[in-house]
Amino acid sequence: MPKFDAQGVLPAIATDVHSGEVVMLAYMNAEALARTIETGIAHYWSRSRNKLWVKGETSGNRQRVLEIRTDCDQDAIWLRVEVEGHGASCHLGYRSCFFRRVPVGEAARPELELAHTGEARAFDPGEVYKKDT
Amino acid sequence: MPKFDAQGVLPAIATDVHSGEVVMLAYMNAEALARTIETGIAHYWSRSRNKLWVKGETSGNRQRVLEIRTDCDQDAIWLRVEVEGHGASCHLGYRSCFFRRVPVGEAARPELELAHTGEARAFDPGEVYKKDT
Repeated sequence: MPKFDAQGVLPAIATDVHSGEVVMLAYMNAEALARTIETGIAHYWSRSRNKLWVKGETSGNRQRVLEIRTDCDQDAIWLRVEVEGHGASCHLGYRSCFFRRVPVGEAARPELELAHTGEARAFDPGEVYKKDT
Repeated sequence: MPKFDAQGVLPAIATDVHSGEVVMLAYMNAEALARTIETGIAHYWSRSRNKLWVKGETSGNRQRVLEIRTDCDQDAIWLRVEVEGHGASCHLGYRSCFFRRVPVGEAARPELELAHTGEARAFDPGEVYKKDT
Protein backbone atom coordinates (compact mmCIF):
# COMPACT_ATOMS: atom_id res chain seq x y z
CA MET A 1 0.00 0.00 0.00
CA PRO A 2 1.36 3.44 -0.87
CA LYS A 3 1.92 5.58 2.23
CA PHE A 4 0.46 9.03 1.80
CA ASP A 5 1.45 11.66 4.35
CA ALA A 6 -0.80 13.64 6.72
CA GLN A 7 -1.87 15.81 3.76
CA GLY A 8 -2.75 12.70 1.75
CA VAL A 9 0.09 13.05 -0.76
CA LEU A 10 3.46 11.54 -1.56
CA PRO A 11 6.35 12.90 -3.64
CA ALA A 12 6.67 11.68 -7.23
CA ILE A 13 9.95 12.02 -9.10
CA ALA A 14 9.79 12.15 -12.91
CA THR A 15 12.85 11.28 -14.98
CA ASP A 16 13.08 11.55 -18.76
CA VAL A 17 13.44 8.09 -20.23
CA HIS A 18 15.72 9.39 -23.00
CA SER A 19 18.09 11.77 -21.20
CA GLY A 20 17.85 10.05 -17.80
CA GLU A 21 17.56 13.51 -16.21
CA VAL A 22 15.32 14.24 -13.26
CA VAL A 23 12.82 16.63 -14.86
CA MET A 24 10.43 17.33 -11.99
CA LEU A 25 9.34 16.56 -8.47
CA ALA A 26 5.63 16.92 -7.77
CA TYR A 27 3.03 15.34 -5.48
CA MET A 28 0.33 12.73 -5.95
CA ASN A 29 -2.69 11.92 -3.87
CA ALA A 30 -4.45 8.55 -4.16
CA GLU A 31 -6.57 9.71 -7.08
CA ALA A 32 -3.62 11.13 -9.02
CA LEU A 33 -1.72 7.87 -8.56
CA ALA A 34 -4.73 5.78 -9.60
CA ARG A 35 -5.33 7.89 -12.73
CA THR A 36 -1.65 7.75 -13.63
CA ILE A 37 -1.65 3.96 -13.38
CA GLU A 38 -4.90 3.59 -15.34
CA THR A 39 -4.13 6.04 -18.14
CA GLY A 40 -0.34 5.95 -18.44
CA ILE A 41 -0.38 9.77 -18.41
CA ALA A 42 1.11 11.54 -15.38
CA HIS A 43 -1.47 13.08 -13.04
CA TYR A 44 -0.45 15.04 -9.97
CA TRP A 45 -2.12 16.79 -7.07
CA SER A 46 -1.51 20.52 -6.98
CA ARG A 47 -0.99 21.46 -3.35
CA SER A 48 -1.27 25.18 -4.14
CA ARG A 49 -4.39 24.96 -6.32
CA ASN A 50 -5.82 22.02 -4.37
CA LYS A 51 -6.81 20.11 -7.45
CA LEU A 52 -5.99 17.14 -9.62
CA TRP A 53 -3.71 18.20 -12.42
CA VAL A 54 -2.74 16.54 -15.70
CA LYS A 55 0.82 17.69 -16.29
CA GLY A 56 0.96 19.40 -19.70
CA GLU A 57 -2.78 19.97 -20.10
CA THR A 58 -2.12 23.63 -20.99
CA SER A 59 1.33 23.46 -22.58
CA GLY A 60 0.88 20.16 -24.41
CA ASN A 61 3.90 18.76 -22.57
CA ARG A 62 2.10 15.74 -21.20
CA GLN A 63 4.19 12.98 -19.65
CA ARG A 64 3.66 9.48 -21.03
CA VAL A 65 4.54 7.08 -18.24
CA LEU A 66 6.64 4.12 -19.35
CA GLU A 67 7.47 2.79 -15.91
CA ILE A 68 6.38 3.38 -12.32
CA ARG A 69 8.52 2.33 -9.39
CA THR A 70 7.92 2.65 -5.67
CA ASP A 71 10.55 2.69 -2.96
CA CYS A 72 11.30 0.36 -0.04
CA ASP A 73 8.95 2.10 2.39
CA GLN A 74 6.42 3.00 -0.30
CA ASP A 75 6.27 6.68 0.51
CA ALA A 76 7.70 7.89 -2.81
CA ILE A 77 7.10 7.20 -6.49
CA TRP A 78 9.49 7.29 -9.44
CA LEU A 79 8.04 7.73 -12.93
CA ARG A 80 10.08 7.18 -16.08
CA VAL A 81 8.39 9.39 -18.66
CA GLU A 82 8.48 10.48 -22.27
CA VAL A 83 7.49 14.12 -22.56
CA GLU A 84 5.17 15.12 -25.42
CA GLY A 85 4.98 18.56 -27.05
CA HIS A 86 8.13 20.62 -26.55
CA GLY A 87 9.66 17.84 -24.46
CA ALA A 88 9.84 20.23 -21.51
CA SER A 89 8.52 19.66 -18.00
CA CYS A 90 9.32 22.99 -16.34
CA HIS A 91 6.73 25.77 -16.41
CA LEU A 92 9.62 28.16 -17.13
CA GLY A 93 10.23 26.43 -20.44
CA TYR A 94 13.14 24.17 -19.54
CA ARG A 95 13.27 20.42 -20.13
CA SER A 96 13.97 19.98 -16.43
CA CYS A 97 12.89 22.05 -13.44
CA PHE A 98 16.38 21.36 -12.07
CA PHE A 99 18.21 23.86 -14.28
CA ARG A 100 20.21 25.49 -11.50
CA ARG A 101 23.31 24.12 -9.89
CA VAL A 102 24.52 24.60 -6.31
CA PRO A 103 28.32 24.39 -6.17
CA VAL A 104 29.59 21.64 -3.86
CA GLY A 105 32.39 22.22 -1.38
CA GLU A 106 31.89 25.99 -1.32
CA ALA A 107 30.84 28.01 1.70
CA ALA A 108 27.43 26.80 2.80
CA ARG A 109 25.43 29.61 1.30
CA PRO A 110 23.33 27.99 -1.41
CA GLU A 111 21.24 31.14 -1.79
CA LEU A 112 24.26 33.00 -3.11
CA GLU A 113 25.78 30.25 -5.18
CA LEU A 114 23.13 29.22 -7.67
CA ALA A 115 24.38 28.93 -11.21
CA HIS A 116 22.31 28.31 -14.30
CA THR A 117 23.29 25.09 -16.07
CA GLY A 118 23.22 27.01 -19.34
CA GLU A 119 20.43 24.93 -20.83
CA ALA A 120 18.23 26.84 -23.28
CA ARG A 121 14.48 27.01 -22.86
CA ALA A 122 12.49 24.54 -24.98
CA PHE A 123 9.50 26.90 -25.08
CA ASP A 124 8.57 30.46 -24.19
CA PRO A 125 6.30 30.37 -21.14
CA GLY A 126 4.81 33.79 -22.04
CA GLU A 127 3.57 32.31 -25.31
CA VAL A 128 2.39 28.99 -23.95
CA TYR A 129 0.64 29.99 -20.73
CA LYS A 130 -1.55 32.85 -21.87
CA LYS A 131 -3.87 32.67 -18.87
CA ASP A 132 -1.70 30.87 -16.35
CA THR A 133 0.47 32.57 -13.79
CA MET B 1 16.89 30.65 -0.95
CA PRO B 2 15.85 27.02 -0.50
CA LYS B 3 12.21 26.71 0.59
CA PHE B 4 11.87 24.33 3.50
CA ASP B 5 8.35 23.19 4.40
CA ALA B 6 6.45 23.67 7.67
CA GLN B 7 8.57 20.87 9.21
CA GLY B 8 11.75 22.63 8.07
CA VAL B 9 12.69 20.04 5.44
CA LEU B 10 12.66 19.57 1.68
CA PRO B 11 12.83 16.39 -0.41
CA ALA B 12 16.21 15.43 -1.87
CA ILE B 13 16.43 13.00 -4.78
CA ALA B 14 19.67 11.04 -5.17
CA THR B 15 20.59 9.55 -8.54
CA ASP B 16 23.61 7.34 -9.20
CA VAL B 17 26.01 9.18 -11.49
CA HIS B 18 27.02 5.92 -13.20
CA SER B 19 23.72 4.10 -13.72
CA GLY B 20 21.57 7.23 -13.84
CA GLU B 21 19.03 5.45 -11.60
CA VAL B 22 17.11 7.19 -8.87
CA VAL B 23 18.54 5.45 -5.81
CA MET B 24 16.74 7.22 -2.98
CA LEU B 25 14.44 10.01 -1.87
CA ALA B 26 15.13 11.45 1.57
CA TYR B 27 14.75 14.78 3.34
CA MET B 28 17.13 17.59 4.25
CA ASN B 29 16.80 20.38 6.74
CA ALA B 30 18.96 23.52 6.48
CA GLU B 31 21.82 21.92 8.41
CA ALA B 32 21.81 18.73 6.30
CA LEU B 33 21.91 20.82 3.13
CA ALA B 34 24.71 23.04 4.46
CA ARG B 35 26.82 20.03 5.55
CA THR B 36 26.24 18.33 2.20
CA ILE B 37 27.43 21.41 0.33
CA GLU B 38 30.47 21.91 2.59
CA THR B 39 31.64 18.31 2.73
CA GLY B 40 30.47 16.83 -0.58
CA ILE B 41 29.05 13.86 1.38
CA ALA B 42 25.26 13.48 1.49
CA HIS B 43 23.69 14.40 4.83
CA TYR B 44 19.96 14.04 5.43
CA TRP B 45 17.49 14.76 8.19
CA SER B 46 15.81 11.66 9.55
CA ARG B 47 12.18 12.55 10.16
CA SER B 48 11.58 9.34 12.15
CA ARG B 49 14.68 9.56 14.35
CA ASN B 50 14.64 13.37 14.37
CA LYS B 51 18.35 13.68 13.76
CA LEU B 52 20.99 14.61 11.24
CA TRP B 53 22.12 11.54 9.40
CA VAL B 54 25.15 10.82 7.22
CA LYS B 55 23.88 8.32 4.68
CA GLY B 56 26.09 5.22 4.89
CA GLU B 57 27.65 5.95 8.27
CA THR B 58 26.81 2.40 9.43
CA SER B 59 26.91 0.45 6.16
CA GLY B 60 29.85 2.28 4.58
CA ASN B 61 27.66 3.16 1.61
CA ARG B 62 28.28 6.90 1.84
CA GLN B 63 27.19 9.06 -1.09
CA ARG B 64 29.87 11.30 -2.60
CA VAL B 65 28.05 14.25 -4.13
CA LEU B 66 29.30 15.22 -7.58
CA GLU B 67 26.55 17.70 -8.40
CA ILE B 68 23.70 19.44 -6.61
CA ARG B 69 20.78 20.95 -8.49
CA THR B 70 17.75 22.79 -7.24
CA ASP B 71 14.43 23.16 -9.01
CA CYS B 72 12.54 26.17 -10.36
CA ASP B 73 10.71 26.91 -7.11
CA GLN B 74 13.61 25.78 -4.93
CA ASP B 75 11.63 23.37 -2.82
CA ALA B 76 13.46 20.22 -3.95
CA ILE B 77 17.08 19.14 -4.37
CA TRP B 78 18.63 16.71 -6.84
CA LEU B 79 21.99 15.12 -5.92
CA ARG B 80 24.10 13.22 -8.43
CA VAL B 81 26.10 10.81 -6.30
CA GLU B 82 28.72 8.11 -6.40
CA VAL B 83 28.01 5.49 -3.77
CA GLU B 84 30.93 4.12 -1.75
CA GLY B 85 31.13 0.68 -0.11
CA HIS B 86 28.76 -1.83 -1.67
CA GLY B 87 27.42 0.82 -4.04
CA ALA B 88 23.98 0.39 -2.52
CA SER B 89 21.70 3.08 -1.13
CA CYS B 90 18.76 1.02 0.14
CA HIS B 91 18.78 -0.23 3.73
CA LEU B 92 17.41 -3.53 2.36
CA GLY B 93 20.64 -4.08 0.45
CA TYR B 94 19.61 -2.93 -3.02
CA ARG B 95 21.43 -0.35 -5.11
CA SER B 96 18.19 1.61 -5.34
CA CYS B 97 15.30 1.90 -2.91
CA PHE B 98 13.08 1.84 -6.01
CA PHE B 99 13.33 -1.91 -6.65
CA ARG B 100 9.61 -2.52 -7.09
CA ARG B 101 7.58 -1.78 -10.15
CA VAL B 102 3.92 -0.80 -10.36
CA PRO B 103 2.43 -1.97 -13.68
CA VAL B 104 1.00 0.87 -15.77
CA GLY B 105 -2.38 0.63 -17.46
CA GLU B 106 -3.65 -2.10 -15.12
CA ALA B 107 -6.57 -1.76 -12.73
CA ALA B 108 -5.75 1.01 -10.27
CA ARG B 109 -4.76 -1.23 -7.41
CA PRO B 110 -1.06 -0.55 -6.88
CA GLU B 111 -1.10 -2.44 -3.57
CA LEU B 112 -1.81 -5.66 -5.44
CA GLU B 113 0.38 -5.09 -8.44
CA LEU B 114 3.89 -4.58 -7.10
CA ALA B 115 6.54 -6.62 -8.86
CA HIS B 116 10.16 -6.92 -7.91
CA THR B 117 12.49 -5.66 -10.63
CA GLY B 118 14.60 -8.78 -10.12
CA GLU B 119 17.67 -6.87 -9.03
CA ALA B 120 19.89 -8.80 -6.57
CA ARG B 121 20.89 -7.32 -3.23
CA ALA B 122 24.36 -5.73 -3.13
CA PHE B 123 24.69 -6.52 0.57
CA ASP B 124 22.95 -8.49 3.31
CA PRO B 125 21.26 -6.06 5.67
CA GLY B 126 21.31 -8.62 8.52
CA GLU B 127 25.10 -8.64 8.32
CA VAL B 128 25.63 -4.93 7.84
CA TYR B 129 23.19 -3.44 10.35
CA LYS B 130 23.93 -5.43 13.47
CA LYS B 131 22.38 -2.91 15.83
CA ASP B 132 20.10 -1.03 13.50
CA THR B 133 16.46 -1.82 12.97
